Amino acid sequence: MTKTNPGNFFEDFSLGQELVHATPRTVTEGDVSLYTALYGFRHMPHSAEPYAMELGFEAMPLDDMLAFHMVFGKTVPDVSLNAVANLGYAAGRFGAPVYPGDTVRTTSTVIGLKENSNGKTGVVYVNSVGVNQKDEVVLDYVRWVMVKKKNLDAPTPEAVIPELPKVVDVDDLVIAEGLDFSKYDCELAGSPHLWEDYEVGEKIDHIDGMTIEEAEHQMATRLYQNTAKVHFDQFAAKDNRFGKRLIYGGHIISLARGLSFNGLGNAFKVAAINAGAHANPTFSGNTIFAWSEVLDKQEIKGRSDMGALRLRLVATKDQPTEGFPYKGEDGKYSPDVVLDLDYWVLMPRRG
Amino acid sequence: MTKTNPGNFFEDFSLGQELVHATPRTVTEGDVSLYTALYGFRHMPHSAEPYAMELGFEAMPLDDMLAFHMVFGKTVPDVSLNAVANLGYAAGRFGAPVYPGDTVRTTSTVIGLKENSNGKTGVVYVNSVGVNQKDEVVLDYVRWVMVKKKNLDAPTPEAVIPELPKVVDVDDLVIAEGLDFSKYDCELAGSPHLWEDYEVGEKIDHIDGMTIEEAEHQMATRLYQNTAKVHFDQFAAKDNRFGKRLIYGGHIISLARGLSFNGLGNAFKVAAINAGAHANPTFSGNTIFAWSEVLDKQEIKGRSDMGALRLRLVATKDQPTEGFPYKGEDGKYSPDVVLDLDYWVLMPRRG
Amino acid sequence: MTKTNPGNFFEDFSLGQELVHATPRTVTEGDVSLYTALYGFRHMPHSAEPYAMELGFEAMPLDDMLAFHMVFGKTVPDVSLNAVANLGYAAGRFGAPVYPGDTVRTTSTVIGLKENSNGKTGVVYVNSVGVNQKDEVVLDYVRWVMVKKKNLDAPTPEAVIPELPKVVDVDDLVIAEGLDFSKYDCELAGSPHLWEDYEVGEKIDHIDGMTIEEAEHQMATRLYQNTAKVHFDQFAAKDNRFGKRLIYGGHIISLARGLSFNGLGNAFKVAAINAGAHANPTFSGNTIFAWSEVLDKQEIKGRSDMGALRLRLVATKDQPTEGFPYKGEDGKYSPDVVLDLDYWVLMPRRG
Repeated sequence: MTKTNPGNFFEDFSLGQELVHATPRTVTEGDVSLYTALYGFRHMPHSAEPYAMELGFEAMPLDDMLAFHMVFGKTVPDVSLNAVANLGYAAGRFGAPVYPGDTVRTTSTVIGLKENSNGKTGVVYVNSVGVNQKDEVVLDYVRWVMVKKKNLDAPTPEAVIPELPKVVDVDDLVIAEGLDFSKYDCELAGSPHLWEDYEVGEKIDHIDGMTIEEAEHQMATRLYQNTAKVHFDQFAAKDNRFGKRLIYGGHIISLARGLSFNGLGNAFKVAAINAGAHANPTFSGNTIFAWSEVLDKQEIKGRSDMGALRLRLVATKDQPTEGFPYKGEDGKYSPDVVLDLDYWVLMPRRG
Repeated sequence: MTKTNPGNFFEDFSLGQELVHATPRTVTEGDVSLYTALYGFRHMPHSAEPYAMELGFEAMPLDDMLAFHMVFGKTVPDVSLNAVANLGYAAGRFGAPVYPGDTVRTTSTVIGLKENSNGKTGVVYVNSVGVNQKDEVVLDYVRWVMVKKKNLDAPTPEAVIPELPKVVDVDDLVIAEGLDFSKYDCELAGSPHLWEDYEVGEKIDHIDGMTIEEAEHQMATRLYQNTAKVHFDQFAAKDNRFGKRLIYGGHIISLARGLSFNGLGNAFKVAAINAGAHANPTFSGNTIFAWSEVLDKQEIKGRSDMGALRLRLVATKDQPTEGFPYKGEDGKYSPDVVLDLDYWVLMPRRG
Repeated sequence: MTKTNPGNFFEDFSLGQELVHATPRTVTEGDVSLYTALYGFRHMPHSAEPYAMELGFEAMPLDDMLAFHMVFGKTVPDVSLNAVANLGYAAGRFGAPVYPGDTVRTTSTVIGLKENSNGKTGVVYVNSVGVNQKDEVVLDYVRWVMVKKKNLDAPTPEAVIPELPKVVDVDDLVIAEGLDFSKYDCELAGSPHLWEDYEVGEKIDHIDGMTIEEAEHQMATRLYQNTAKVHFDQFAAKDNRFGKRLIYGGHIISLARGLSFNGLGNAFKVAAINAGAHANPTFSGNTIFAWSEVLDKQEIKGRSDMGALRLRLVATKDQPTEGFPYKGEDGKYSPDVVLDLDYWVLMPRRG
C-alpha cells in the first residue's frame, strides 16, 4: 500500500461526509511580515498594533485574506488534489479576527455532488469551516471544484446541488465583539474616504501594477501550506498546456486587494465573500492590475461607526485598468481578466 | 473626484508645511528575520538577544538601516510619488533604538523649495522625523528630491534652500541611555578590530559580492511599505529608458552594509547619516560589491567604551572593489558606482 | 593588515584546536515562517503550538533541520571558507529541542587532519557542538571538508583520522525530557502511518517535485548566516565551471525533507544524522524530487509511545523518483542524485 497521499477522487466523496483537514497552523508575526513583503499591505489596523487596539481589536489582526489562505490551504490535500478546476465560492463569512498566536484548523462537509455527463469528472461542493484554538469560527465558506474520477466505473451518485445565496445578507455579517470604528484616524490610515463617500455604481481604477515572480508565489503558497503541485514543479509543468507553473488563485486575490488600497484605503475589514471566479490563469512575469466597483452600500443595524460596502474586485494581467476591462459581449471574461471577486467590507463612517 | 492618491506635485508643497505620513508600522521579529534573509546580516547585537542586552539594549535592536527604511517608506506616498530623482540626504541622526514590538510613524516638514529654471520641476527639502510609540525620536533626517510640477502655470515660490551641515557633529550623536559597550565580546562578534584599530584614510575592500534578484528587492521594498511604482511594475518599466524595474536605493544601502561586515564586523551601531547619493541605478541581476574608507575618527566625550568612526561606504555593480572605484577625473561617479554613503558609527573600543 | 576574514587554510588547523564560532543567533517565529515559506513544511508539531505542547514540547519546536542549518551556518567562516568540498557528516545527534526565543551558538574542535598527496589540499575533521542559552546541547556532529593549503611549503601534519561510527547507536539517541508521543493525533497530522507500519527495506517515492529559484536559496542561506560566497555572487560564478551560483547543500536537505512529508508525514522528529553526501551540485531551475528507504527499525528502551526508524533520504534533480534512482553499477551516484542522507527519526507508535 502506498503511504503517499493520493488525494480524493470524485467517487471518494459522499454527501454529508466530514473531512477533518490536517495540519493545524499557529499563525505568527512572521507570517504577517511575509504577507506584507509579498503584497505590500498598508491597511493601518493590519500594520500598527496600537491603532488596531483603539478600534477594539485584541491585537493586530491578520488581513482577512491571509486568514482565508490559511483556512483554505488545509483543504487542498483532501478536496482539490485531483481537481481539474476551482469553480466558485459562495456564502463566505469571516468571524472572529485572527491574531498572531492563534491556531487555526479546518473541517469541511460535502454538501453537494454532481457527476458530469462525460462520466470522467464531477463537481464537489464543500462547506469549509475554519476555527481558532477557542473553537470560534474564523471563516465559514462554500467552494465547489471539478474533480476527476479515478474509477470510471464507479456508480454515479444522486445529483445534489446545494442552494447557495448569491450574496451574503448584510444582516448576516459578523461583527466581532468589541469592535468600534468611531476612533478611526483617517490621516494615519492614509485615506480620507469613508463609507459615506462611496456610491453604488462607482468604479475605481487602482492604477498601480505589480509583477509576479516565481519565488514570490511559491513562497506565498507554501506559507499557506497549500500543496497543489501545479504551483511548484516546473519539470512537470514544462509539458502542460502552458509550459509553466500556475499561480495559486489566492495569490492574485491578495495582490489585487493590496493594489486596491489605492482608492479603498479604509476597506481593511473583509466581512464576507459572496462569489469569486479565477477567470484566467496567471504566470510568473505577469503584471497584475486591479479595479473595483461598488455593488451595494448598506447601513448596519444599530451602528453609526461603520457601514457595509459590497465590492467587485477585478484583477487583470498585463492590462492597465483605466477602461475597467471585464467581460465581452458574449458574457465571457476578457482574456486579460484573471479575478472577479464579489465581497463585503465593513468601513468606518463619520457617524 | 478620484479616490486614488495622486501624490503631491511641486506646487502642492509650501514652506513650513507639515506632512503627517500614513500607516504607522509595528515592527516585529518577522521583519528582522526577513531582513536577515534579504541581506545576510551578522552583527551580533542584531542577531543575538542576550548579547545585545549585555550592551545595555532593552532587547535585540533592529539594524539602524532597517529602522531607516521603515521611517523612510512612510514618506514616499506624500513626498516622492512624483519625484524625478532622490537628490540627497543630510543631518540624519538615529535616536532611540527600535525594538520588535515598537510602532514607528513619521512626520515631515517642508524646509526648503526651489523651482528649477525649466519651470517643469523643483527641489523639495523635507525634514522627516520618525518616532516610536513613546514619542521618542528614532530617526531625524533631511532629504531633498526633485519633484514634477503638474500645473506648469503654478506660481514659482520664493526659493529657500536650507543650511545643512556637511557632517553631523560628533557631539550631536545620540547615545541611547543605558548603552555600555565595555562588555563587548569580539570573539563571538566575529571580528577582533575595534575603534582603535581603524585609521583615518584607511580603505577596506569588503571583497564579497551579492547578486540581486527581482523577488528579493520587491519583497524588501514592500516590507518597508515603500510604494514607489518603478520598483514593481514591469509592464510599465518595459517602456522606460532602462526597460527594467529599478531597485530601491535603500536596498543597495542594506546590501552594501551587509557586505561591509567583512572588515567592519563591529560597526553595528549607525549613529548618523551625513550625506548620501544613489550614484547610478541598479537592476535585478547586478552583483553588488562594496568598499569603505575611514573619513574621521573621534573620541566621544566621557566615554571609554566606544568611539566614533566616520565612514564612506561605496557600492558598485558588477565591479569588484579591490581598486576602490569611485569618481573619474571629471569628478563624476564612475558608471559602476551605485552608492556613496557618508555615515557615523559608534564602535566598541578597548578603553 | 587586512581586516577582512581570509578564512582558515589547511595549515591553519591543528589537532585539538578549539574554534569559537561567531554570531550567536536568537531564533524567532520569523525564522519559522520563512522556513515554512521556503520549503512548505507541514509536520504538525512544527506547525501548531497546542499540539506540540500536548506531546511534551515546551512550545512549537523548530524543525530539527532548521536547527541544523543555524548551528552549521556559524561554522562556515572558520571551517569552510576555503573548502574545496564538503565530504561528509557523521555522529550527528540532536539534543534539546530549539524553540523560538532560544539563542544558539556553535563551537568546533578539530579532531582529525590529513594532508592530501598532492600537497595542495587536506582534509579537516571537526566536531561541532551547538548549544542554547542554557548551555544545553542542541546538536553535536562531525563533518569533514577538503580545505586548500595557502602556503604550499607549510609542513605536513601527522595524519589523524578519527574513528567515526557508521551509524549512531539507537541507545545513544537523545529523547528530550518530557516528550511523550502517546497523545499524537494522526488525523490532524495528516498521515495514518506510524512506526509499526514501516518495514525495513521499504522504499517510498515521495512523488512531488519542487523547483528552486535563485531568490529562494539565497534568502535561505542568508537566513542561516552561511556566508559561503559561491551561493551569492553571479559575477564570479559566471567564470566557474558551471557558470552559475551553487545551491547550499542544506537547502536541498530541507527541500527533500519537506517533500518526504508525503509518505513520512509523522517523521517529524529527527534524532540523528548518521551520514550524508551532497552527491552532485544543484542550481536554480532544478526541480528536486525525493525518495526514502527504511534502513532499520528499532524499539526504544522503556518506551511504548515511540520507536526509531533509520531512513535513507535520496534527492534527485530533474528526475522523478518512481524508479528510486541511486547509484550506478560502478558504485557511483547517478548524475541526477544530489543528496544521500542517512538519519534516524523518532516516530509515534500505537503502543
